[in-house]
Amino acid sequence: MTSWRDPSLPIDERVADLLARMSLREKVAQMYGAWLNVDDTAGEVAPHQNDQAPDPIDWPELIRQGLGQLTRIYGSAPVEPLAGARRVADLQRQIVAAGRFGIPAVVHEECLTGLAAWKAPIFPAPLSWGASFDPQLVRRMAHHIGVTMRRLGIHQGLAPVLDVARDLRWGRVEETIGEDPHLVGTIGAAYVDGLQAAGVVATLKHFVGYSTSRAGRNLAPVSIGHRELRDVLLPPFEMALAAGARSVMNSYTDVDNVPVAADGSLLTELLRDELGFRGTVVSDYFAVAFLETLHRVAADRAEAAALALQAGIDIELPGVNCYGAPLLKAIEAGDVTTAEVDRAVTRILRQKAELGLLDPDWQPEPDHLGAPGELDDAEARAVARALAERAVVLLRNESGALPLRPGTRLAVVGPGAATADSLFGCYSFPRHVGVHHPGLPLGVAAPSIVDVLGAQFEVAYEQGCPVRGGDDAGIAAAARAAAEADVCVAVLGDLAGLFGVGTSGEGCDAADLRLPGRQEELLEALLATGTPVVLVMLTGRPYELSRQADRLAAALAAFFPGEEGAAAIAGVLSGRVNPSGRLPVGFPAAGASQPSTYLAAPLAQRSEVSNVDPTALYPFGHGLSYAAGTWGEPELNAPDGWSTSDAIELTVPLHNPHERAVSEVVQVYLHDPVCSVVRPVRQLLAAPRVDLAPGESRTLVLTLHADLLSFTGRDGGRWVEPGDVELHVARSSADTHATLRVRMVGPARQLGPGRHLTPTFEVRG
Amino acid sequence: MTSWRDPSLPIDERVADLLARMSLREKVAQMYGAWLNVDDTAGEVAPHQNDQAPDPIDWPELIRQGLGQLTRIYGSAPVEPLAGARRVADLQRQIVAAGRFGIPAVVHEECLTGLAAWKAPIFPAPLSWGASFDPQLVRRMAHHIGVTMRRLGIHQGLAPVLDVARDLRWGRVEETIGEDPHLVGTIGAAYVDGLQAAGVVATLKHFVGYSTSRAGRNLAPVSIGHRELRDVLLPPFEMALAAGARSVMNSYTDVDNVPVAADGSLLTELLRDELGFRGTVVSDYFAVAFLETLHRVAADRAEAAALALQAGIDIELPGVNCYGAPLLKAIEAGDVTTAEVDRAVTRILRQKAELGLLDPDWQPEPDHLGAPGELDDAEARAVARALAERAVVLLRNESGALPLRPGTRLAVVGPGAATADSLFGCYSFPRHVGVHHPGLPLGVAAPSIVDVLGAQFEVAYEQGCPVRGGDDAGIAAAARAAAEADVCVAVLGDLAGLFGVGTSGEGCDAADLRLPGRQEELLEALLATGTPVVLVMLTGRPYELSRQADRLAAALAAFFPGEEGAAAIAGVLSGRVNPSGRLPVGFPAAGASQPSTYLAAPLAQRSEVSNVDPTALYPFGHGLSYAAGTWGEPELNAPDGWSTSDAIELTVPLHNPHERAVSEVVQVYLHDPVCSVVRPVRQLLAAPRVDLAPGESRTLVLTLHADLLSFTGRDGGRWVEPGDVELHVARSSADTHATLRVRMVGPARQLGPGRHLTPTFEVRG
Repeated sequence: MTSWRDPSLPIDERVADLLARMSLREKVAQMYGAWLNVDDTAGEVAPHQNDQAPDPIDWPELIRQGLGQLTRIYGSAPVEPLAGARRVADLQRQIVAAGRFGIPAVVHEECLTGLAAWKAPIFPAPLSWGASFDPQLVRRMAHHIGVTMRRLGIHQGLAPVLDVARDLRWGRVEETIGEDPHLVGTIGAAYVDGLQAAGVVATLKHFVGYSTSRAGRNLAPVSIGHRELRDVLLPPFEMALAAGARSVMNSYTDVDNVPVAADGSLLTELLRDELGFRGTVVSDYFAVAFLETLHRVAADRAEAAALALQAGIDIELPGVNCYGAPLLKAIEAGDVTTAEVDRAVTRILRQKAELGLLDPDWQPEPDHLGAPGELDDAEARAVARALAERAVVLLRNESGALPLRPGTRLAVVGPGAATADSLFGCYSFPRHVGVHHPGLPLGVAAPSIVDVLGAQFEVAYEQGCPVRGGDDAGIAAAARAAAEADVCVAVLGDLAGLFGVGTSGEGCDAADLRLPGRQEELLEALLATGTPVVLVMLTGRPYELSRQADRLAAALAAFFPGEEGAAAIAGVLSGRVNPSGRLPVGFPAAGASQPSTYLAAPLAQRSEVSNVDPTALYPFGHGLSYAAGTWGEPELNAPDGWSTSDAIELTVPLHNPHERAVSEVVQVYLHDPVCSVVRPVRQLLAAPRVDLAPGESRTLVLTLHADLLSFTGRDGGRWVEPGDVELHVARSSADTHATLRVRMVGPARQLGPGRHLTPTFEVRG
Repeated sequence: MTSWRDPSLPIDERVADLLARMSLREKVAQMYGAWLNVDDTAGEVAPHQNDQAPDPIDWPELIRQGLGQLTRIYGSAPVEPLAGARRVADLQRQIVAAGRFGIPAVVHEECLTGLAAWKAPIFPAPLSWGASFDPQLVRRMAHHIGVTMRRLGIHQGLAPVLDVARDLRWGRVEETIGEDPHLVGTIGAAYVDGLQAAGVVATLKHFVGYSTSRAGRNLAPVSIGHRELRDVLLPPFEMALAAGARSVMNSYTDVDNVPVAADGSLLTELLRDELGFRGTVVSDYFAVAFLETLHRVAADRAEAAALALQAGIDIELPGVNCYGAPLLKAIEAGDVTTAEVDRAVTRILRQKAELGLLDPDWQPEPDHLGAPGELDDAEARAVARALAERAVVLLRNESGALPLRPGTRLAVVGPGAATADSLFGCYSFPRHVGVHHPGLPLGVAAPSIVDVLGAQFEVAYEQGCPVRGGDDAGIAAAARAAAEADVCVAVLGDLAGLFGVGTSGEGCDAADLRLPGRQEELLEALLATGTPVVLVMLTGRPYELSRQADRLAAALAAFFPGEEGAAAIAGVLSGRVNPSGRLPVGFPAAGASQPSTYLAAPLAQRSEVSNVDPTALYPFGHGLSYAAGTWGEPELNAPDGWSTSDAIELTVPLHNPHERAVSEVVQVYLHDPVCSVVRPVRQLLAAPRVDLAPGESRTLVLTLHADLLSFTGRDGGRWVEPGDVELHVARSSADTHATLRVRMVGPARQLGPGRHLTPTFEVRG
């Protein structure tokens, strides 16, 4: 037994010992993976997958020096979970046997809306996590995902996405948690905590600056400055790193003409030197090669490898394009030092040590291998249901159109009504992979809205039109069905998919924000019947409803609610569920000019100097309930002002006067009337969710640290300034319940790393 | 005679002497102006004009300490030129008499499309200057404008606009010269040279970062980084400063959360310390006060004054909000030093000395006061005509639809056809001021398109619909007229105006790029008749034509062509003029997602990773001619490569095989295949226009300095790198005639200030 095998020694010692024994070739082999299950027939699940895929894999050769990483054994083509787990174990045995040191690979898989594997549970997509404003529930979901992954031999999950939505046209808005950094960070950190508590490495992506690409086009250049990067895009990463996240993936884009994959100021100086990150940085798929082929900052793969490694990318995914022979060539040419290789390999081996992969008792068999078909267990269904129910946002409800009265005759219309596809995000297995395997069973139970409503109401169903394309042949029949019903439920929206497969998802950007295909015409035809129309939106982004909103009896936004989504929606429609979701992204104004965000300075809002009014139709944080709590007068315990270095307590009395449970999302926004830099008129500081039983009265006590008010100042540093500020206790970003003015006292304070980013709260009484 | 009055002494000595004699109050009085002619009834010609206007002016009090500046005597309400000139002289006499030193004011006026005064000639708007690709003609126009201003006692013109168009939704796109920095800089510098050769100070605006405001909304925040600012927005200013521009106006916007009006890193470090500017910086109207009221970075006017002055704004316009009592309060409080005041006043007095305003023989009467009514003289008409003719862009001409054959029966249709209003930009007097004075005669002759075509052809006119609004009552009649004609000329587009008055212009931003009002429906109705439709666009921005372009017989873009615009357009339609304009801004792709620019890196262009294709319908530089020259094989005299520090010669043989004159715009684009930062796939380096008489053969010889290839590198410095580059000799940004590959040799070279920005050329043979 050599010392690196000795679990009783400190990890850094073990890694140093192992590194000293490895040849350069063996080290480099740790820095890339193999993507075994993918071929030309698999369909595109990564950009440029087909032209970037390496030559056919020579497996014995590949593992002769060891192989550091294994890519997507489950998420590339349909694999029975048990067979997949056996395959993983078998591959690991081969890798261990082939190399001189017998080091197993880290097995990676996508897991955004649940593990991207056939028969794994399909949870709501991230916009629904945001709409839930419920980090505990998201943590529970992520823990279940992590446990599933461990059962299947997977060590690292390529989630969560912590990009802050900035342009609703971007196809990946559905993968974001919302448009507010605090919300994204709070929910994202809970996901990280849940996944990692199960022993799986979470991967924060995409660090940093992907969501603001030009005109919302995927991978297009990003034009932002230092302050926008620091104050909007970075905080979710800071919060998730504080929660212990152990891996980070780069953004594909360039930021102000420097590709992030080649930018050491972001991947090393900011991420590691400043934020103290010690884990691994993995490349987004093909991102190292893209330095040559798409960004054109490298003349060949060797230059690309050098740029990426020196910037701070430790691991090339999905397979090896640049970190193999080209990297060795760059080392040989003296363009890359062995110290730079050692830096990356040290991080990789440290993570393997932490995962137990260097331990003498490591076994290739997954920890707790269950029988196939059990992945989608009762706990999964319960979490999927609870999260979906909390995430349905009731946008509008005129004259009590909802809940539906028993006995209502329904026309249920629209391309999303009678299918499960409409419920899933683009990283779900069915939409990500299954779509390329016609006839493949879904693998999990996922009733449609027609299925669920049909069990409770008399339902006439018509599709009306498909999600996209010009086919309007069914609109007339749909309108007839609506005309003959008491209420029409119109289920409209997106079909998630990748690279042209859908209307939302990676590569599926929108040129404008009109509902796809002929759906707006379908909606107009339904409204023209005079039958009250309840719009249910299953979408990956908010769409422009300005032309119809006033005429809708009610409207729900459910985003992609997952396998229990139809039950959750039907629960809200029938009144079984008291809706309590809140918008994580606002619905745009007429014209829907983008980019747009509620985090808007005065001149980014409605203004007499522009005739385009960007005021959201339904703003960030908006959401109605059938029964809502009453809020008392908030108080701040800051009689002598709020020190620029301390925390204060904000109390909000809450009461439920109803005979059913209510759930309140108490949103606290900062308004800084005068600041040394331009700031948003309001910015979310905290948004705890408080459940109140019938008749219950409780008091929310929030502890807010002055660090939460900090911003990036003129000098590039992070500051808390003295002076008056306002806290808005609010039901949405546009509906303030009470305004508390408080004076920040003490000197202007510059913050170092490790600032307080997450307010704490308790509920008393 | 004190020494500051002595014209034989160096200006700096005179200014120092005068400054030493002035009280603080007298100094401060130099730093602001008075806007005398504006009142509540004048209509809004500046943002927030009515709520920002100072209290009623107490003139005797205002001039008691001197008054440094006089604002828009002609451009605020209709004034007879002669009466205006007498008023200016009278006001100057009063100012001189009231102050201890008898220093006259600097008189400012807008002059973008010609002097913004009643009865002054109305030239084409800047997009047409760009479309002409003819700096000499623009210089001639600007010189005429300058001479007119001198005749009227005006010293400083608030033009040109050097913002580079980045988002077509922005209302002020019509005020830009185009989307390319080289084009904007070349034409802008020519304007500066022409105006200043007449003795009038040119004002470069808006320094820097206005055109990239969020979603194209006026004054909205700007998200850009260092490199985009340096490589795209700054070059036009550098070129105009190299041409000797003597004043600069700030951008209203913030850039990455710091308002430019409060940003010393831009207004002082960049503009003065780095670029060597020695003239005055004037505030855009109310921009100092906006630091308090809109940007909220100042608590009151005193703070706003301090921030602006310390950043480098020397003069507050239009009147005094902050640089009077509030500034004195800030000085008294010690927040502003007298040295900071002296710095600004020194610049102001230096400019006054240069203008002769400190000379003992200065006279209040303008230099060469002509009789009223003569402003729009024969030279003005000739320049306006020549520029408009060179600026009409023939976008499409199928199967010889144009030129119109004699005897063709025309239906001339559309809201722009029978009015002069459609020909003018938002800074023209009629659209800027006249619009608030119903019944006021235009003041200049400006025949409409119907007028001019009616003199040559049999014309049936129908409006069809107004420019904006929902009125479609006239569409049917227009379609009937089209159906009965041989050819339908549809004159569609914008009505320029300010702050809600128009569909293009300051504050008149667009939410999308569909033709305003019902004009797209009108066009569809015309196309449905089967009569060939020739579309003439009079617009302040390109609109989305993707749904109709294929069905148009021909299409012209004429932007706002000025008082001779109708004659120019009719000249092209009839064939009298061989069209030779080229697009200074591309017409957008289907969906028209914005922002968009031809200056696009690979990932900003069509890509398989996004389903939104931003490829322009008609790209930057595009334009057809009835007869075009033939281009021979270009050659580079760089047998041993191109030194990173030297110039080379590029020769292009040109021949005119026709029996009529042709005019070629030879566009040379740079393509840098591999660079240390991400760069546009192509970038214009030079675009000389060459006229060829019938049968003539000439050789264009361009001298290109390696500095033209420079870019802002990773370290923020400006570099020329060795390695292969390509020069594309092209008819448009998407139509390459020949590609020349050349190796840049020698070391990577960092450039200091004063780089070569303007290629020179001659035409031989």
